[in-house]
Amino acid sequence: MKAVTKMSSQYLTPLVVQRADPYIYKHSDGYYYFTASVPAYNLIEIRRAKTLNGLANAAPRTVWRKHDSGEMSQLIWAPEIHFINNKWYIYFAAAETTAFDENGMFQHRMFCIECDNPDPMRQEEDWIERGQVKTGMDSFSLDATCFEQNGNLYYVWAQKDPAIKGNSNLYIAEMENPWTLKTKPVLISKPEFEWETNIFSVNEGPAVIHRNGKLFITYSASATDQNYCMGMLIADDQSDLLNSNSWTKQDKPVFESNLSVRQYGPGHNSFTIGEDNKTDILVYHCRDYTTIKGDPLYDPNRHTCVQPFTWNSDGLPNFGKPNPYNYK
Amino acid sequence: MKAVTKMSSQYLTPLVVQRADPYIYKHSDGYYYFTASVPAYNLIEIRRAKTLNGLANAAPRTVWRKHDSGEMSQLIWAPEIHFINNKWYIYFAAAETTAFDENGMFQHRMFCIECDNPDPMRQEEDWIERGQVKTGMDSFSLDATCFEQNGNLYYVWAQKDPAIKGNSNLYIAEMENPWTLKTKPVLISKPEFEWETNIFSVNEGPAVIHRNGKLFITYSASATDQNYCMGMLIADDQSDLLNSNSWTKQDKPVFESNLSVRQYGPGHNSFTIGEDNKTDILVYHCRDYTTIKGDPLYDPNRHTCVQPFTWNSDGLPNFGKPNPYNYK
Repeated sequence: MKAVTKMSSQYLTPLVVQRADPYIYKHSDGYYYFTASVPAYNLIEIRRAKTLNGLANAAPRTVWRKHDSGEMSQLIWAPEIHFINNKWYIYFAAAETTAFDENGMFQHRMFCIECDNPDPMRQEEDWIERGQVKTGMDSFSLDATCFEQNGNLYYVWAQKDPAIKGNSNLYIAEMENPWTLKTKPVLISKPEFEWETNIFSVNEGPAVIHRNGKLFITYSASATDQNYCMGMLIADDQSDLLNSNSWTKQDKPVFESNLSVRQYGPGHNSFTIGEDNKTDILVYHCRDYTTIKGDPLYDPNRHTCVQPFTWNSDGLPNFGKPNPYNYK
Repeated sequence: MKAVTKMSSQYLTPLVVQRADPYIYKHSDGYYYFTASVPAYNLIEIRRAKTLNGLANAAPRTVWRKHDSGEMSQLIWAPEIHFINNKWYIYFAAAETTAFDENGMFQHRMFCIECDNPDPMRQEEDWIERGQVKTGMDSFSLDATCFEQNGNLYYVWAQKDPAIKGNSNLYIAEMENPWTLKTKPVLISKPEFEWETNIFSVNEGPAVIHRNGKLFITYSASATDQNYCMGMLIADDQSDLLNSNSWTKQDKPVFESNLSVRQYGPGHNSFTIGEDNKTDILVYHCRDYTTIKGDPLYDPNRHTCVQPFTWNSDGLPNFGKPNPYNYK
């Protein structure tokens, strides 16, 4: 535990101010690439640095901006940048309107853009739109991520099923290519425990990490206030990942508010690796107060944090608790 | 010069990403208070830290947000936080609409909010609106600052005069109280030199520093692209500051783009003091590219930078050039 404490303190906390739904990818060029939701939800930006701390004040570039109207014109959420078959892809959610649909949900769908220049920050013109990632279900969907396993590319995301209570569930499918699903969605988690259904019943923001012969999918649950927390699914890496029975849900949250240091509602995480290419790093956003005025969606103060984590002897991750701020 | 180089490198550059029109005030509580325009132009926030570098990732608090309609409902620009007679004041510019007026100008007027709690970040409810700061001229006005000299409180700002070519000129007046002028506006500068009239004729963003028996007002000139630069006015501190003849303009810019390190359009500066309470610090925003897509106003990548500066033997400041980025 001493080592963890020591490592934690090396990272600026918060790391990036006013960036929610953070995603960090360490590329073969040695840079950490960072993207996240911006407070105005109007564009997708990337920044990069050779160290995680460097992301705190690394200069961003806009790589895509919302359309004036149509399906990609509102509430640009939760971009993730992936490098697949030597091209860059960004998944994000976008809506046509800020209004709710007949289920009382936002109207997001998932989209994909692609860049085949080695430098994804060179210019907006390098990015082309690959359109909506269709799942065969026409409903609120968001927070897409993807991963490769046994030579197959998988897509994991959150989506509303009108037949299931709550905002969204988690699904998995295999991909034909980075913007097209090959298989039908398989439901792997829905909000069911008390900690997944506080105020709102939510499963969203999936993130995948492969260790110890297992695939772990962490996700975020409940309302995006201090109730927001992370849950986890586990599958054997040799199992059929498209079989919902391969996935087991932990019955308790794996990461949650740390009231004693005023860190509330940590979640929408991703994973990256330390500068040593060994230490696993949890990336998440968190708020430092609970007195949100108005719609939490338009309170910009969800800040990106990173902290190292370790693995227990049973092969499961130990994420610890959200760290306190350490800026001077 | 060696000392300057050494001091410069101690500050993160850029310091605060995506904050334009930066203002930093070091208070008696030992904190640096930072505010600036946010990319959405929709609210006023403050952050604080014990060091300038700490501002890079210090957690902000919203202290005021734009109204849904009316004179303070659009384009909240360039807040400055001042501490006057034991109360906090923030000056800012706001508009009723994003449309232009009959002069082809934005429709901003200047406003003041006040907080009498010692902690200006405690809660939004601590801030009350003191309304428009009226100048007797009803036109585009913005970028207010204030300073005390010989026991008097002065207000300096930018405003359009339809009879004068260009976007805005600089004016000074004495104040009755922090939100009311006592005297009529005195014109102290209008765009006239080539470097003040590139693309747009602009004098804006005044900042005041008092050294060596003189008052210096730096300001920003020309279009807010790579042409943006800083000019300077000088007055003897015993002169009548409300007499325009007391102010002399430097015929060359005092701070401008540094092409060799890709720093473009530095300006809208303010001044603060180093952690040693001795070193003068220039605070400004700058862009790192010239290829702006669409309206520069909605390109969020003006970043706050700080760097120490020195004084020449003639008693004038030497701001040097914008420093290169130094994040790793």
